[in-house]
Amino acid sequence: MMSPQEFEAALRAKIDGKTKPLGALGRIEALAAQIARAQQSLAPRLEHGRLILFAGDHGIAAEGVSAYPSEVTRQMVLNFLAGGAAANVFAREAGLPVAVVDCGLAGAPILDARLIARRIGPGTANSRHGPAMTAAQCEAALALGRELSCEGDLDALCLGEMGIGNTSAAALLAAKITGQPVAGFIGRGTGVDAAGLARKRSILEAAAARTAPQLPPQEALAEYGGFEIAAMAGAMLGAAEARRLVLVDGFIASAAALVALTMAPAIRPNLVFAHRSAEQGHGALLAVLEAEPLLDLGLRLGEGSGALLAWPLMRAAAAMLNEMASFESAAVSGPA
Amino acid sequence: MMSPQEFEAALRAKIDGKTKPLGALGRIEALAAQIARAQQSLAPRLEHGRLILFAGDHGIAAEGVSAYPSEVTRQMVLNFLAGGAAANVFAREAGLPVAVVDCGLAGAPILDARLIARRIGPGTANSRHGPAMTAAQCEAALALGRELSCEGDLDALCLGEMGIGNTSAAALLAAKITGQPVAGFIGRGTGVDAAGLARKRSILEAAAARTAPQLPPQEALAEYGGFEIAAMAGAMLGAAEARRLVLVDGFIASAAALVALTMAPAIRPNLVFAHRSAEQGHGALLAVLEAEPLLDLGLRLGEGSGALLAWPLMRAAAAMLNEMASFESAAVSGPA
Repeated sequence: MMSPQEFEAALRAKIDGKTKPLGALGRIEALAAQIARAQQSLAPRLEHGRLILFAGDHGIAAEGVSAYPSEVTRQMVLNFLAGGAAANVFAREAGLPVAVVDCGLAGAPILDARLIARRIGPGTANSRHGPAMTAAQCEAALALGRELSCEGDLDALCLGEMGIGNTSAAALLAAKITGQPVAGFIGRGTGVDAAGLARKRSILEAAAARTAPQLPPQEALAEYGGFEIAAMAGAMLGAAEARRLVLVDGFIASAAALVALTMAPAIRPNLVFAHRSAEQGHGALLAVLEAEPLLDLGLRLGEGSGALLAWPLMRAAAAMLNEMASFESAAVSGPA
Repeated sequence: MMSPQEFEAALRAKIDGKTKPLGALGRIEALAAQIARAQQSLAPRLEHGRLILFAGDHGIAAEGVSAYPSEVTRQMVLNFLAGGAAANVFAREAGLPVAVVDCGLAGAPILDARLIARRIGPGTANSRHGPAMTAAQCEAALALGRELSCEGDLDALCLGEMGIGNTSAAALLAAKITGQPVAGFIGRGTGVDAAGLARKRSILEAAAARTAPQLPPQEALAEYGGFEIAAMAGAMLGAAEARRLVLVDGFIASAAALVALTMAPAIRPNLVFAHRSAEQGHGALLAVLEAEPLLDLGLRLGEGSGALLAWPLMRAAAAMLNEMASFESAAVSGPA
């Protein structure tokens, strides 16, 4: 068993010994090191993963904070099950299976054997007027994510979400956990126009005014979160305990990461931030998280789409560490 | 046969009809449109590609412009053939074969059936004191790239290079084609220290002073280029004629793109800029090219490594266009 210092030295030596100028693979080298540390292995495995796609509805959607009606959450779940959404297409490209979880859709339960039907309620309550969920519901959603994150013999997870209204929930969560004004975390979501954005801001400010400016993470989650967001936070906590890496998608997933990291800062090395979303508030949230995502492609879709697009970079980083020749093994000269 | 206007309208309608908010896939949508336009198809194919890895030596390396000795070009070619370099590892991950081309290594020819042995000379001449190649050699290198770019039934190419000293050649090319001072395109290459960088700058300024501040592209190529750079430029020209897409790697490949685009501006839609290199001069070169690469990962390796890391984004973009459901087909509601 190596000491932490010995492990770091051996890791550095292995990366620096590869046939490339020192540091020439930039963030791929840093990513390889992160994967190695998370697995405590100089030969990390990054073979088996999956996308867990958590869906839930939001009571606050009734306030008209989104460009789309709440039914779209359910319609998109059916689209995920049929394999037609962006997440399905990108998951096929990445070679990853997709698990779709009903954490709490509004309306009648969807009867489909392919769905992981674990609804905690028929959508959250409207957080404009009271807590989105009870403390027990919040616990149940966290536990659901934790449970699903540990299934199978997997190395890493992509986490995604679907829930009309969830940029509002994420903005409120970010505000309440950081103690910053909610305005700095508000964006156009699925695409509200200027009037819609003004409306969204006034509703979220009213919702935020219900409680103290700063709340403990689990309390903030119950007051303003969503079942899918709580499940994602739980999945991050569980994955880290199982030494799994998590590819954190965009704005909503980052809000879940803020919850999880505030509850358990030690999980930070297990989280890889996949992309910088075009959603306005993501920059502010990433700054709070001190995270520099791998990709910046102007995405603002959710569903884990950005995490799936970053998956090949994770694979490449692990393969670099495991398969690339060293100066010694390939008989290549070092600097003159 | 659709008119260009009809094609654009149909392409826009197809992308906008996918089950996602308008524009929510950001640059993936733009990339899908670029692929569709290059192939003039609303159902483009992005199945078959390869990495062509052009290697050549540089006479100017004798001036001590690189941190590594010239022998490393040959040693790395052997590493490519053995499958141990970053390019091999990333190509395996991307599912792409690698073709290694000796365009002009110094020393005795490498006898290996896996190598495409097409050497134009034993490295270029030292451009500090005279033209790097003759006009006939320059023609031959362009023709070589053009020929190799059209082989097989491929949809897209990743182009990469290996050649100790070639950041110097690329900087000189960029300067002579744009008419800008060479200093703005100089960086540390494989990693020279501050003294090495000062030395590199004075040598490149002396080399640049041999000729007029601005030269026609093919003349600049002959005066200052490398066999591998000329072959890459030829490959870009040939690939575009064959309606193939080219993933342009980093600094050296961008210099080849500058040559090719100055010779034939119409090939622009076929070039996808893969990544922003950490090599100092790349930012200035990308600004000249008005190119915004897909990735920014601090890479400065060459070999086509950045192009290979961007390949999955090309695949995802094409798959989005071909496989993703529409609002209509999936019965998903549009904005309220």
